[in-house]
Amino acid sequence: MREKAHQSGVIFRPHVKTHKTEEVARLQHGGGIGPITVSTLAEGEFFADRGWRDITYAVPIAPEKLQRAAALASRIDRLNILIDSHDALRAIEESRQTFDVFLKIDCGYHRAGVDPDDPDSEQLARAMARSEFVRFQGLLTHAGHSYNSKNIDDIRRIAGEESAALSRFRALLGFDSMGEIIRSIGSTPTASVVDRFSDCDEVRPGNYVFYDAFQSTIGSCAPDDVAVSVLATVVGVYPERHSLIIDAGALALSKDLGAGTDYGRVCDEQLRPLPLRLTSVSQEHGKIEGDVSHISVGTRLRIIPNHSCLTAAMFDVYYAVDGDRVVGEWRPVRGW
Amino acid sequence: MREKAHQSGVIFRPHVKTHKTEEVARLQHGGGIGPITVSTLAEGEFFADRGWRDITYAVPIAPEKLQRAAALASRIDRLNILIDSHDALRAIEESRQTFDVFLKIDCGYHRAGVDPDDPDSEQLARAMARSEFVRFQGLLTHAGHSYNSKNIDDIRRIAGEESAALSRFRALLGFDSMGEIIRSIGSTPTASVVDRFSDCDEVRPGNYVFYDAFQSTIGSCAPDDVAVSVLATVVGVYPERHSLIIDAGALALSKDLGAGTDYGRVCDEQLRPLPLRLTSVSQEHGKIEGDVSHISVGTRLRIIPNHSCLTAAMFDVYYAVDGDRVVGEWRPVRGW
Repeated sequence: MREKAHQSGVIFRPHVKTHKTEEVARLQHGGGIGPITVSTLAEGEFFADRGWRDITYAVPIAPEKLQRAAALASRIDRLNILIDSHDALRAIEESRQTFDVFLKIDCGYHRAGVDPDDPDSEQLARAMARSEFVRFQGLLTHAGHSYNSKNIDDIRRIAGEESAALSRFRALLGFDSMGEIIRSIGSTPTASVVDRFSDCDEVRPGNYVFYDAFQSTIGSCAPDDVAVSVLATVVGVYPERHSLIIDAGALALSKDLGAGTDYGRVCDEQLRPLPLRLTSVSQEHGKIEGDVSHISVGTRLRIIPNHSCLTAAMFDVYYAVDGDRVVGEWRPVRGW
Repeated sequence: MREKAHQSGVIFRPHVKTHKTEEVARLQHGGGIGPITVSTLAEGEFFADRGWRDITYAVPIAPEKLQRAAALASRIDRLNILIDSHDALRAIEESRQTFDVFLKIDCGYHRAGVDPDDPDSEQLARAMARSEFVRFQGLLTHAGHSYNSKNIDDIRRIAGEESAALSRFRALLGFDSMGEIIRSIGSTPTASVVDRFSDCDEVRPGNYVFYDAFQSTIGSCAPDDVAVSVLATVVGVYPERHSLIIDAGALALSKDLGAGTDYGRVCDEQLRPLPLRLTSVSQEHGKIEGDVSHISVGTRLRIIPNHSCLTAAMFDVYYAVDGDRVVGEWRPVRGW
């Protein structure tokens, strides 16, 4: 991903929310420190404490968080924040602090962001550029609707819309009057399927660093590309009920169903897929159904998570393994 | 719940997995220390460190955890563990350590536990009672299928099955040959709807201490009985899309849908229900739909979780409030 960004001549600002560790962030940057994207101020502070100096906090900021964001910004080179409303712009101005700010654009996901075709969005962008408390950085979007894709063609189409939404809006604003306007995009599906990044200036994928069962289902990656699994132990086998229980439940795996009806993919300890289904999870139990006659209490299974971001966040430590050997213990930051 | 247990003359051993804090466990026991149920060895160790001396670890134990369980057992009065297979009994015997052990019975949930009507279950119980490495404590069941209830009558019927399964199996074993056999039951729905506990010797409800939106839906409690909420801030309002975004997503709320299609109940800061729906959550965003025209960026909302056990576990600290005043900061144990 890093190579593709560099070859495309765009800024590579990977999201670190999937892993929340310094070790993986360094892997994303080829061993060094570079621009990153975070999902919480706690992540921003964690990385700032470790020398990372160029951070985008990619959730529209709550007014009450501006003071804390200013404190973080004051000790690094740049903290970019996001807004998508006149209310938030007003809150920045009332804070009497100057921020590096992106305008969040909705490119079709309809979660956060302003409609690039609404005249009011242009007014907001111009008001931001005019504000003495805003250093206007540019336009940022997240094509989260790529997660609804059924296949690579769907993802490619959305990748086109993602860049087009920003480029069209930037053209509307005009290059000259506003200074440089960075177009920042980033979703793992769209970033994974394009051969090179075009019509943008910065990319922010995050999940790609682990991938997961869901990403392999929609075509962002191959099943073998998934880099995380949860090692669990069989604690009960019930052949007459065609089921068994593992000691990994909702607090180890999350309750994310991805695009399906199961809570992850069941593999043996060597990550070979098994014809078994993880059909339900309660707090500390996972229930697996299928032909369990060859499995006994104490057997270890690996579960490939549907959504690695949510599953990884359940753990205080990740064991980095090279084959059977543990080569690292990485500790993610938590909370907000 | 404590009073009902005492009036019924049964042991009160509340589950602490819903909150995982010493403060709430003491509330469950009227301020003091008493028998508790835990869902992880980490919880057991946390409470043992704080002077709790009578603990049941209520997940069938993995053979690899026996050594750690023995270490925990050695520093308190009693650690009860659970098994439901000859394989697990063999693992105990191979450990050459003696444990206090319950046999887990399936009373209809079909997650863990042996079928009380299967002759092999009787054989397993007798083998446990005979084993020199087992102090046979009795029979334990969890009526988790009460969570599939639609109303109080459903729950009452399951409460009857729960006790009956244990009493029937105990009668099969015979009182005289096996010594005292404790019948331990416990699910919040069944424990909530009965007027008194009968046909059992011990009760282990846990969720009742907080309750949640789901429990109020099936009739375990009234909506006003729910004791936890997640305070969130509106970070984006999109009246034209009839939606808004809060800064609480899947990592603050969990992705538990309860019995419905929403991720929690939306209330104002004073816990008054609002006619809004929390229709989707991503990692750090919650999307709320409805008439949002009267809400602005910075407004605070409270979300009543569908499943308080999973939501509470997402936080490193709970703020205990009395009206608007924070009267305590309680820190749960995490991990396994």
